[in-house]
Amino acid sequence: MPHQTTVDAASCADALAALRERVPLVQCLTNIVVAQWTANVLLAVGAAPAMVDNPEEAGPFAAIAGGVLVNLGTPYVETVAAMELAVASAKEAGTPWVLDPVAAGALGWRTEIARKLLSESPTVLRGNASEVMALTGGAGGKGVESVDSPEAALSAAVELAGLHGTVVAVSGPVDHLTDGDRVIRVGNGHPLLTRVTGVGCALGGMMAGFAAVVDDPLLAAVAATATLTVCGDLAAARAPLPGSFAVALLDELASLTPTGLAERVRLS
Amino acid sequence: MPHQTTVDAASCADALAALRERVPLVQCLTNIVVAQWTANVLLAVGAAPAMVDNPEEAGPFAAIAGGVLVNLGTPYVETVAAMELAVASAKEAGTPWVLDPVAAGALGWRTEIARKLLSESPTVLRGNASEVMALTGGAGGKGVESVDSPEAALSAAVELAGLHGTVVAVSGPVDHLTDGDRVIRVGNGHPLLTRVTGVGCALGGMMAGFAAVVDDPLLAAVAATATLTVCGDLAAARAPLPGSFAVALLDELASLTPTGLAERVRLS
Amino acid sequence: MPHQTTVDAASCADALAALRERVPLVQCLTNIVVAQWTANVLLAVGAAPAMVDNPEEAGPFAAIAGGVLVNLGTPYVETVAAMELAVASAKEAGTPWVLDPVAAGALGWRTEIARKLLSESPTVLRGNASEVMALTGGAGGKGVESVDSPEAALSAAVELAGLHGTVVAVSGPVDHLTDGDRVIRVGNGHPLLTRVTGVGCALGGMMAGFAAVVDDPLLAAVAATATLTVCGDLAAARAPLPGSFAVALLDELASLTPTGLAERVRLS
Repeated sequence: MPHQTTVDAASCADALAALRERVPLVQCLTNIVVAQWTANVLLAVGAAPAMVDNPEEAGPFAAIAGGVLVNLGTPYVETVAAMELAVASAKEAGTPWVLDPVAAGALGWRTEIARKLLSESPTVLRGNASEVMALTGGAGGKGVESVDSPEAALSAAVELAGLHGTVVAVSGPVDHLTDGDRVIRVGNGHPLLTRVTGVGCALGGMMAGFAAVVDDPLLAAVAATATLTVCGDLAAARAPLPGSFAVALLDELASLTPTGLAERVRLS
Repeated sequence: MPHQTTVDAASCADALAALRERVPLVQCLTNIVVAQWTANVLLAVGAAPAMVDNPEEAGPFAAIAGGVLVNLGTPYVETVAAMELAVASAKEAGTPWVLDPVAAGALGWRTEIARKLLSESPTVLRGNASEVMALTGGAGGKGVESVDSPEAALSAAVELAGLHGTVVAVSGPVDHLTDGDRVIRVGNGHPLLTRVTGVGCALGGMMAGFAAVVDDPLLAAVAATATLTVCGDLAAARAPLPGSFAVALLDELASLTPTGLAERVRLS
Repeated sequence: MPHQTTVDAASCADALAALRERVPLVQCLTNIVVAQWTANVLLAVGAAPAMVDNPEEAGPFAAIAGGVLVNLGTPYVETVAAMELAVASAKEAGTPWVLDPVAAGALGWRTEIARKLLSESPTVLRGNASEVMALTGGAGGKGVESVDSPEAALSAAVELAGLHGTVVAVSGPVDHLTDGDRVIRVGNGHPLLTRVTGVGCALGGMMAGFAAVVDDPLLAAVAATATLTVCGDLAAARAPLPGSFAVALLDELASLTPTGLAERVRLS
């Protein structure tokens, strides 16, 4: 049973302070669409990204990384092999790792890969409602967009969390996160976050970074979600169109203080 | 013979309204340089991008996508196999698809791939003058930049359109588009569009998106070109340097209205 | 022995003018994280990037390119094969080429690849202190971030330069560059340059572009470093957060004049 702490605004703020202090090394095995964006999000918030995703190096690197992201956005034979090696190594070394099963349910090959990886008990499973529901046998989404609501996915999330000993984070207008026991809602989601590619993917990287610096995986996932979505609110207030919003989001991630996070996050 | 409609400012505006209304799912098999930018352009304008480019999933996904982009910017053995499967599936399912033969003529392997794919009669062939001329046996360009003018490529474009039953769109200071019968020129091209990587590649994705929502492939290609280049004009007017121009272009794509498009596009 | 010229502010300014005049074609075999950014940096400064990185085309293209970048950020079996073919072809054709051994020392496979490529005598070897020291047998860094100072790496750089007949460029707060004989320091490095992914990688591409237009490889490497870091200073002065800084950096690269470069660069 992972360590449980109080998950509230103050502990999220402490987690952000710890991330800034320790600059965790986050190994990302992610997709060709969002690799740059994910690295820039991690650099902005204060982590150290390293996109090591080939089979020759992914395993050894997962043993020394602070956290690992496995994202199925554009899987290829070679990178999937690297993911499997990274996961095996992360588990053996005790490195926390995050699974983001992009478009699971909509596409056959990756759905099987996602199920196999999920059976390895990721520290955090992060996805939209359709992806999470698909992994319990639901119908799946339309490409990479969710057609289901996070509320509808909550029972699936609780089920998966209990079954695999994982924290499940369901993205949406309100984010729902659970470790099977506790359920936390983060109410800062802004629609503009869906108009920039890779925001959810980068959130997975942030969760791996926070999991490197706090013991409770639910707190790590909530603190990452809180940090990203609070910055989304701040960015949208001054940059209401998607190109400038993405730029502003990076700026907010770099300038948000733990105190600012605690003041603005809406947890329930 | 594809459906022919009047291609004018009003029908372009209607096409943009239809795209926003229907949010077409656009499968992109594209290159590692522009995948993020292409996704962000499609999200900004109102489509739903999905970069499904592995051989295991590309075929089935092309059957359910609204449109498919095949772009040869950075071909690899695995992704070329995926392209061939996606094209076969798109043809069988009646999904419109766009071929962008990046650097055809300058590089041997991809030129052969481009010729083979062109023989499958894409809905739209999109390229610069050198690339289009190379596919009729011309001399080819210098890397990815065109050394020929769109005017010079027009007869090649008309020839290819007639031969393969495809719409041919030749990018340049003035864009020239033809279905072999009609010829449409779009006069909004701004030089800054060539100082940001992937603008032409993203235009191919937009054409796939518009082809998903209008019946006439020439109208789809013209409406996409009009939308992109009008937004280029608007962005350049307030952001005359390439970094901020790229950001402004995304913002303009998100805020352009059908009426604004009709007012600003210069067709002839 | 390569041609030696005076390396000073005036010759850097002349090199920038030559780059703008000749628009060199720069072949980039680089990583999935920074391919877009590298292309946009090269376009902004005035070069013509082409990301040709498959084994079928990389060799022939290196013979016609003005310069070649080989960057080990995300190596795969197929792209490493392409790198080896590109290097062999560049050497035979006399095309200058730059080796960027990203994370050498921290990861085993790429360290061996980097050593093998270094033995082919690149025109320029570009890296941070940890990467350069690792190639002489040093302990290596933490992922992609340097844990050593450029000053500490200088003796390793001089040793490698003499051994392989290469210019060695060590990035850091102060950049140190040497051809084994001369040592040049560029003092414009700004901390924000480390908060955007791929700045060093793009610098490698710029070095390949400058090496295409000037005879002295040390001048090429210094002029590229000077151009990038001066623009970094200018961008940081008006955009002190990483998202908007990256945008401003591209704008500065497009607008910097040779005179402006000469006035602001701090060489010693």
